[in-house]
Amino acid sequence: MSEALDLLFTNVHLATMVDGYGELQGAALGVRDGRIAWLGPRSEAPAANAEHDCGGAWMTPGLVDCHTHIVHAGNRSNEWEARLNGASYEDIARQGGGIMSTVRATREADVDALLAQSLPRVARLLSEGVTTLEIKSGYGLELAAEERMLRAAREVAQPLPVRVVTTFLGAHAIPPEFAGRPDEYVTEVCERMLPALARAGLVDAVDAFCERIGFSNAQTERIFAAARMLGLPVKLHAEQLSDQGGAELVARYGGLSADHLEHLTQAGIDAMARAGTVAVLLPGAYYFLRETVQPPIAALREAGVPMAVSTDCNPGTSPMTSLLLAMNMACTLWRLTPQEALQGATLHAARALGLQGEIGSLEVGKQADLALWNIARPADLAYAMGSNPCRAVVNGGIVRPAHIG
Amino acid sequence: MSEALDLLFTNVHLATMVDGYGELQGAALGVRDGRIAWLGPRSEAPAANAEHDCGGAWMTPGLVDCHTHIVHAGNRSNEWEARLNGASYEDIARQGGGIMSTVRATREADVDALLAQSLPRVARLLSEGVTTLEIKSGYGLELAAEERMLRAAREVAQPLPVRVVTTFLGAHAIPPEFAGRPDEYVTEVCERMLPALARAGLVDAVDAFCERIGFSNAQTERIFAAARMLGLPVKLHAEQLSDQGGAELVARYGGLSADHLEHLTQAGIDAMARAGTVAVLLPGAYYFLRETVQPPIAALREAGVPMAVSTDCNPGTSPMTSLLLAMNMACTLWRLTPQEALQGATLHAARALGLQGEIGSLEVGKQADLALWNIARPADLAYAMGSNPCRAVVNGGIVRPAHIG
Ligand SMILES: [Zn+2]
Ligand SMILES: [Zn+2]
Repeated sequence: MSEALDLLFTNVHLATMVDGYGELQGAALGVRDGRIAWLGPRSEAPAANAEHDCGGAWMTPGLVDCHTHIVHAGNRSNEWEARLNGASYEDIARQGGGIMSTVRATREADVDALLAQSLPRVARLLSEGVTTLEIKSGYGLELAAEERMLRAAREVAQPLPVRVVTTFLGAHAIPPEFAGRPDEYVTEVCERMLPALARAGLVDAVDAFCERIGFSNAQTERIFAAARMLGLPVKLHAEQLSDQGGAELVARYGGLSADHLEHLTQAGIDAMARAGTVAVLLPGAYYFLRETVQPPIAALREAGVPMAVSTDCNPGTSPMTSLLLAMNMACTLWRLTPQEALQGATLHAARALGLQGEIGSLEVGKQADLALWNIARPADLAYAMGSNPCRAVVNGGIVRPAHIG
Repeated sequence: MSEALDLLFTNVHLATMVDGYGELQGAALGVRDGRIAWLGPRSEAPAANAEHDCGGAWMTPGLVDCHTHIVHAGNRSNEWEARLNGASYEDIARQGGGIMSTVRATREADVDALLAQSLPRVARLLSEGVTTLEIKSGYGLELAAEERMLRAAREVAQPLPVRVVTTFLGAHAIPPEFAGRPDEYVTEVCERMLPALARAGLVDAVDAFCERIGFSNAQTERIFAAARMLGLPVKLHAEQLSDQGGAELVARYGGLSADHLEHLTQAGIDAMARAGTVAVLLPGAYYFLRETVQPPIAALREAGVPMAVSTDCNPGTSPMTSLLLAMNMACTLWRLTPQEALQGATLHAARALGLQGEIGSLEVGKQADLALWNIARPADLAYAMGSNPCRAVVNGGIVRPAHIG
């Protein structure tokens, strides 16, 4: 006979996210050794050493924010304000604005300074039930600064109760030292930066910005080949501003995800569907940049491509620290259903990180990373704007209050 | 010689909101008897009985949310989800949806039930530095239920540290009992409901929904005339979906504000400018309803009409409990400057409530209703999406932590 459960959550409605919402109302969920060990009707629950009465709350898997640039120094509210006050992009570029202003600030920051600035942003996400967070490098653009970013990303999980997955995004932009020599910078990324950072255990996946104003399809493929040599999974900023065939490329490399996708073609969708590559939707950037071309949601749905939703938290194009708001925007602006939005912040976001076996749904054997909500129904999570109905978060079976900031 | 200050805030940057941001960096602000008694450089500060070191934070006037329907029962996430799942407006109407579902739920709720459901929403607003809040009736549509709503609105200020201003919005919709007889309902509003509620001290101002699907210009004027008889100021839901000449009407009655205004004409702008009527901008509803016609921001600016920004918190068209998010939307979607957005949530919002002599700026003699922020510059308040940098709130000189929920 099996051991008693460590903890039994009772008086709770479950949105298991297995096959849609996977609702189990008036249920219970048991945890043993930090994992989900049982779920079902309260009356059939096995013995437990402790009980947590959820007061009729809803429980979902802990939310997963699968695409962020949340570790960085400074912000760009000054440029944003200058634009709204009438300055042109040229004015701002002349004053040293744009991504390079974040690169300068980030290069000047040590790991502690990066952490000090980033932890409040992360805490804000966690207060809304996020239990797993992807963090990219990409504002260092030189080995030492990229390493500091990735170390800071790893260290976020020391003071804060969150699982962090790191992504090396050395190919985020061409640093000033390599101006006009993008191929040489890609060589630096592939032959020096990536191997060193991977050796240091700082890289869980590899990403690039494939775009006319970023890296070409051919340059991106060199980076993917380097990642493959090191056994690292890949993902891609693809088809945000134009169609570069990035989705097909990342699918060809069995990539975890293609992200943004406003200009995705049917060929890209088909390639992603065949490869099982997740479409990571980032409505915050679309909203903040006032874009008008939407990702092909209906065609992605039709093709059965899993859609994740993420904040894209970054200072230039999506200064957003609310995954619930990203869900609302995905529904309001792009007509995802609330169920798709919640799948996009749980099940499919977990898949975008290659963690679908560990997190993202309420299933026996998965990590007990959970969120408890004071809501009437699961749709409330995407419906409300600026609300936070999170009443508690559970990380590996440990219950904590939602507000830790 | 004057008495010592009760409290001196030091090590603080002030955005006084007098003439733009009215920045005073590295300053101090003194409070006596719950009012601002002094502000200036720290070195010139008079004696104080206590000191509050703000740690280099920014201080603004407490935020003012000047247009909400935050007291109501139930929500409408089920209809919203049904729409996104493909149901038509007709399907939803057949199932008893729309505003009447909120009216039914609100009529069934007693004051305590209304409070229990509304206080978490209000607490969310307050956690972002709101110190004054307007609350409308309008989901009762019969005397007893309107009275319960207004009593609940008044009682919000018992457990929570907030100044509440009530607005009677009996003419929000035509109740089922008066279907097809709008003029008779307006008679009920003017002759029975409004006088009784005013006599009970529950009405600070009078509002109506002037629209093809609401009340006509002539019906609205009957309500304004009744308000004038009682000495009550008026405001109006005007020009949201079509031009009904509502702005000119409310200006003619010296109204506090005309609200929404997507279809406002130049004649309406001119009338508002002459009358000093505030334009209350509600970008949350525009966003949530996916409207495409924007209010004439440039023309309002040109005419010198003060622009306020508010959440319009309501379950049908703007389930929003973040005034900072409304500010972001006003900038992102409608190109307000961050300074205009902050004026819109302080100085001009105070004017929209007729409280410009009491609150809305940091000036000697005004109430010490203040907000302290962990930000680098005032523009950060409108720039970030889903962030909450509020570190403390001050109500009438009493300091409390931002998170009270
Ligand atoms: Zn990104
Ligand atoms: Zn309204």
